[in-house]
Amino acid sequence: MNDSNLRERLVECGQLFHSRGWSVGTSSNYSAVRREDPLEITITVSGKDKGKLDVSDFVVVGQDGSPVQGESQKSSAETMLHVKAVQRLNAKSVLHTHSVWGTLLSDFFHEEDGFEISGYEMLKGLEGIPDHQSSIWVPIFENTQDIPALADEFENYLANHPDRKCYGYLIRRHGLYTWGKDVFSARRHIEVFEFLFEVIARRMMMTNIPSPIRLA
Amino acid sequence: MNDSNLRERLVECGQLFHSRGWSVGTSSNYSAVRREDPLEITITVSGKDKGKLDVSDFVVVGQDGSPVQGESQKSSAETMLHVKAVQRLNAKSVLHTHSVWGTLLSDFFHEEDGFEISGYEMLKGLEGIPDHQSSIWVPIFENTQDIPALADEFENYLANHPDRKCYGYLIRRHGLYTWGKDVFSARRHIEVFEFLFEVIARRMMMTNIPSPIRLA
Amino acid sequence: MNDSNLRERLVECGQLFHSRGWSVGTSSNYSAVRREDPLEITITVSGKDKGKLDVSDFVVVGQDGSPVQGESQKSSAETMLHVKAVQRLNAKSVLHTHSVWGTLLSDFFHEEDGFEISGYEMLKGLEGIPDHQSSIWVPIFENTQDIPALADEFENYLANHPDRKCYGYLIRRHGLYTWGKDVFSARRHIEVFEFLFEVIARRMMMTNIPSPIRLA
Amino acid sequence: MNDSNLRERLVECGQLFHSRGWSVGTSSNYSAVRREDPLEITITVSGKDKGKLDVSDFVVVGQDGSPVQGESQKSSAETMLHVKAVQRLNAKSVLHTHSVWGTLLSDFFHEEDGFEISGYEMLKGLEGIPDHQSSIWVPIFENTQDIPALADEFENYLANHPDRKCYGYLIRRHGLYTWGKDVFSARRHIEVFEFLFEVIARRMMMTNIPSPIRLA
Repeated sequence: MNDSNLRERLVECGQLFHSRGWSVGTSSNYSAVRREDPLEITITVSGKDKGKLDVSDFVVVGQDGSPVQGESQKSSAETMLHVKAVQRLNAKSVLHTHSVWGTLLSDFFHEEDGFEISGYEMLKGLEGIPDHQSSIWVPIFENTQDIPALADEFENYLANHPDRKCYGYLIRRHGLYTWGKDVFSARRHIEVFEFLFEVIARRMMMTNIPSPIRLA
Repeated sequence: MNDSNLRERLVECGQLFHSRGWSVGTSSNYSAVRREDPLEITITVSGKDKGKLDVSDFVVVGQDGSPVQGESQKSSAETMLHVKAVQRLNAKSVLHTHSVWGTLLSDFFHEEDGFEISGYEMLKGLEGIPDHQSSIWVPIFENTQDIPALADEFENYLANHPDRKCYGYLIRRHGLYTWGKDVFSARRHIEVFEFLFEVIARRMMMTNIPSPIRLA
Repeated sequence: MNDSNLRERLVECGQLFHSRGWSVGTSSNYSAVRREDPLEITITVSGKDKGKLDVSDFVVVGQDGSPVQGESQKSSAETMLHVKAVQRLNAKSVLHTHSVWGTLLSDFFHEEDGFEISGYEMLKGLEGIPDHQSSIWVPIFENTQDIPALADEFENYLANHPDRKCYGYLIRRHGLYTWGKDVFSARRHIEVFEFLFEVIARRMMMTNIPSPIRLA
Repeated sequence: MNDSNLRERLVECGQLFHSRGWSVGTSSNYSAVRREDPLEITITVSGKDKGKLDVSDFVVVGQDGSPVQGESQKSSAETMLHVKAVQRLNAKSVLHTHSVWGTLLSDFFHEEDGFEISGYEMLKGLEGIPDHQSSIWVPIFENTQDIPALADEFENYLANHPDRKCYGYLIRRHGLYTWGKDVFSARRHIEVFEFLFEVIARRMMMTNIPSPIRLA
């Protein structure tokens, strides 16, 4: 898929995510790998209304997260989190959103450093999950404006849990990062996580559970 | 209605259900009978974004759930649940969705094997229900990836409850199956069930009822 | 406004109300007075998807609620509730919807025969309400399929409360009736009531109030 | 940006806010500065459906809030609240909405005269907020139909809290006022506040907190 097609797919992600309330207030950023060697990633520029992105609202960055030569626009400080997911997990598209339910759960389960999700059929929407009895862990990292530190924390998490496939993570009171083998797959992962976040949070409310627990 | 019209109606179902959040993450599948003898069912192929189905995103299967000759695409493993509803209940369209409220109720009332709904005017949206005082039972089956076993469980339920008209069932932490005499009717049943699921679940939350109860 | 314009306005109501989830499953019916003497009311025919009404999905009825000569389609049994609101309150448009929050409140406050709303700025969206300190009473009638009995109950309520201006009423576990001096006004009243119903119900949930109370 | 462009941007605000349920029942009003000296503000006329504004549904007012010469339409009584935000805070656009979550919080925290928000990444969507650890105070003013009194209360609040940057305020059981350096910025502020209001209110519900508290 060429760069122009990637931008169109990411523009559509913005329309969907904004309409769902997952990318309001110019929050969020979306990226896709447009070239593998040397690595070039097409990513949203900062400060745009994600519901009305234009194909010109993107910038191409290299493996250090800096714009490639000739680019005049600036991407988010969080660009390095996109680069890391591409480098460490071979992702081809990385999507970052800010939803109400994700924000709530990131706060609720913060002291446990994350939460487990298992037992839901919707999990099968995550690439490679074979059945509803599978279990995933959603790590939660403390929010910080020090993005290199956050990128390190993500890398350390991956290094320390080689046995756990990581499909996405939450930054506390901030938002979700997930990814996939292409934009379609990454977008599906956003939808799957948001569905499960809502189910988990509403389940807690329906059952009057006032304190953090594992829900599986 | 010819096969092309049926596909267009099912495409519209996908647009509606995705916008409502009932078919996200490429979940769900939709079908309609296009020929009665021998039985041929037009059903969505696996893995498509249900909000953007195309008329080519369908496959025709026979009474054994396998694609008819000449078909190269694959339908969901759950195809046999569509076939069973057609065969046992004379349905002409079967719709399967994955909603937050349905998922929650399927879990909440799982130990009782289902729940009763009665007393709501919206019940009259189910084909043949004459008044709000009617009562229906929504059976809940444990989720499994063994679809033939699930199909058997559905058939056993029908055989064991010849007195109860079955309008739909939930698979635990998975989703809803309902059907109708045509796509319009099946879609109406989805809307009716989703409305009632939301009412029932919110009612439990408003009244601080922490444990399973019948709500009628 | 001629009959064709009235139908177009009512079609738009259906699109809006269906998208909000207030008229799903082919529920609801909408009407407008097209002629005053003799009285002729244009009203939706039964069983249509309210999100996709066509200008042909209406029937003209007279003051007895029966279709005028030449009409071949059938309106809802509830047509007489529209006629009564027109006759007793000089309404020019009557809108009936089925929402989740309205259904919940109609059940919650049923034993008190209704509930008071006061103190909200949004009340000013009801025709003639001068300020937020105004108070309205929303009567709740028990649901029944005996529409003449329901029409009588509404008339008795009006007769017994000549001091209270009635802007709308709920039928228990069924839905809302409201009206206005034209379609625009009646639609505004639907929006105002639905907003206030959601506020009142969520307020109860936020404050953990488990039993019926007046909220003003 | 000329007056015609400003109107188009405000029309788009109405479409978005109505679709979100923040401007229903003809509530809300939106404005933008079209000329600085002498001050001229383009503001919505009263009583229009905010989801379907037309560029003619605006009136130009001067620094006293009265329509300039040649204007025949009337703006809301609340026009002076727009003028004050422009005069005191150098705003170029002022947006006023009525949302469910804002209404609920305005009531919940009324006795404390407002509430603090801190710790959320989404705060960075407010102009000039550098990081999630920033804290803002959302003042709440008692609702009244006496708009000059309300304007005075706002001015007194600003005078008494020269140390706090004010991004917006709630009027109890009424709605939100926020503003920005242009329509885009003010709209972003609406989205940021509504997101945070929903997070805060749902957080209270998830944690079963029955009485007013600060949430930061």
